[in-house]
Amino acid sequence: MERRGNMMDYRPDIKVVDATIRDGGLVNNFFFEDQFVKELYEANIKAGVDYMEFGYKASKDLFKREEFGDWKFCDEEDIRRIVGDNDSNLKIAVMADVGRTDFEKDIIPKSESVIDLIRVATYIHQMPAALEMIEYCHKMGYETSCNIMAVSTARESDIDQALELLGKSSVDVIYLVDSYGSLYPEQIRELTHKYQTVADKYGKQIGIHAHNNQQLAFANTIESCTYGASYLDGTMSGMGRGAGNCMMEMLMGFLKNPKYRIIPVLRFVEKQITKLKDEGVVWGYDVPYLCTGILNVHPRSAIAASKENNRNYADFYIGLWDKE
Amino acid sequence: MERRGNMMDYRPDIKVVDATIRDGGLVNNFFFEDQFVKELYEANIKAGVDYMEFGYKASKDLFKREEFGDWKFCDEEDIRRIVGDNDSNLKIAVMADVGRTDFEKDIIPKSESVIDLIRVATYIHQMPAALEMIEYCHKMGYETSCNIMAVSTARESDIDQALELLGKSSVDVIYLVDSYGSLYPEQIRELTHKYQTVADKYGKQIGIHAHNNQQLAFANTIESCTYGASYLDGTMSGMGRGAGNCMMEMLMGFLKNPKYRIIPVLRFVEKQITKLKDEGVVWGYDVPYLCTGILNVHPRSAIAASKENNRNYADFYIGLWDKE
Repeated sequence: MERRGNMMDYRPDIKVVDATIRDGGLVNNFFFEDQFVKELYEANIKAGVDYMEFGYKASKDLFKREEFGDWKFCDEEDIRRIVGDNDSNLKIAVMADVGRTDFEKDIIPKSESVIDLIRVATYIHQMPAALEMIEYCHKMGYETSCNIMAVSTARESDIDQALELLGKSSVDVIYLVDSYGSLYPEQIRELTHKYQTVADKYGKQIGIHAHNNQQLAFANTIESCTYGASYLDGTMSGMGRGAGNCMMEMLMGFLKNPKYRIIPVLRFVEKQITKLKDEGVVWGYDVPYLCTGILNVHPRSAIAASKENNRNYADFYIGLWDKE
Repeated sequence: MERRGNMMDYRPDIKVVDATIRDGGLVNNFFFEDQFVKELYEANIKAGVDYMEFGYKASKDLFKREEFGDWKFCDEEDIRRIVGDNDSNLKIAVMADVGRTDFEKDIIPKSESVIDLIRVATYIHQMPAALEMIEYCHKMGYETSCNIMAVSTARESDIDQALELLGKSSVDVIYLVDSYGSLYPEQIRELTHKYQTVADKYGKQIGIHAHNNQQLAFANTIESCTYGASYLDGTMSGMGRGAGNCMMEMLMGFLKNPKYRIIPVLRFVEKQITKLKDEGVVWGYDVPYLCTGILNVHPRSAIAASKENNRNYADFYIGLWDKE
């Protein structure tokens, strides 16, 4: 496997993607105060972050508008309420879940939108629907990425086929996603190599989105980066579902490009993240997440255990054996 | 660099070392209740752990006996109070700091002791004194390891010389130690390769002791293992100075040898570690530790910030620039 870059210089292909509102919104049903989102937007600009993901483009037929904050839906006027015309170098991203987005209704032409990148999230068995959305968004003028979720439970031959389909599509970035936080660094390197080989063949770039069940989100992100990934997802203090994500403050400490600055991130964390935590919003590493990560299963039972403050860790672990 | 082993099989050379009392004792001045130590000893036996480090062999001339719990000194009768004659497969280890141990007085012949392994901890400029202790302990009949601390701030040529000296000594195991939690996985791989090359030349084994400042303790431990390290240090829930260590529960989830069992570890954590935490004993990842880790400095200022619950992270980070 070929290593890219080194510990002294930096690679200009690297892009940092802040997913705090999108993955963090899974913790609080997207009920963020505008002040939080505005300060995050400003912190990202100052920190040199390349993309800020504002949330999902969720179907209003499938999800009740009043049960979620604005960022579950990311209406154009809501994003513009924060960013205006986004007169900055920070690009705006949203996520669109296959089967949960009315893309032909809710995704307007890029010429009318402040959004730059649409990230299509899909399970591997939904690839045809994902490709349809990717081509639609591409034709509407957007940058696109495809995030294939839960690959730690997928067959390798299926991953190979999905990557070939994406290689031949209009997608710009193919994301390696460790949905269950179950992959070890050496597995991340193998998968990165697999993704990168297809990406190089077809002129695409790859990205990495990691979860922190085994406290490996940062390690896996920088390992994937070292072996090729250009798009690196992080969130402020790792805010995200369950064990959360790769922490932006860690990424900023690691990256060598002088455009990246850790101080605006630390200032945002000390002001806005500590406030959220003081208010009782909970995410981050805990033993039940380690258990689901080790066993490579969805974290939903760990989220429930964490909410109930269930500390019968051994019984919880044993209970997972029958749920696989 | 050569990878050893794979993700399916296991390597019989691997030894797991529980350092909970020794590194964890730095959090509570070694004031553990006997019940805690006894249950830890029993959990380690059930979990298949290979060595349990009970604490330090500290000089009673340098440290006042009444200011510390028993495990700062590890008198023979105190260890025997817990383990009797240690009729088990779990070996007993203690740490002896160069310059802080009256080894000729306090280290008795192995034939009279229940201790198996003496771990000599040294800074790189103290190598001659470390070698003197190693040869003394070896002649007394003990297994020995040498833990060269703070190598992230040492010159590479000095590390090379120290490794050569150790190669020619009677030491059994040479430890790679990331004292400041500042090393990234790719650096750990490089250093592992360096240590392993000397170890192979002289018939030694190598070990890894990692700290969790950047949430890389587990990742660095398994990376070092993948590229050669046989002795893997862990502590229950990572209990250890500052950001703590590699978590035993993570190691047990990763290792493939069926003799290793996670359930006794989880039971110990849910009973004894949650109790310690509920009593207000604090360790583990926090932003100030990330800051000292990124800047590769001693965590003492971060420990102070954490104790004062200082959450002015950005100012703390900026303040570290002048302390280097």
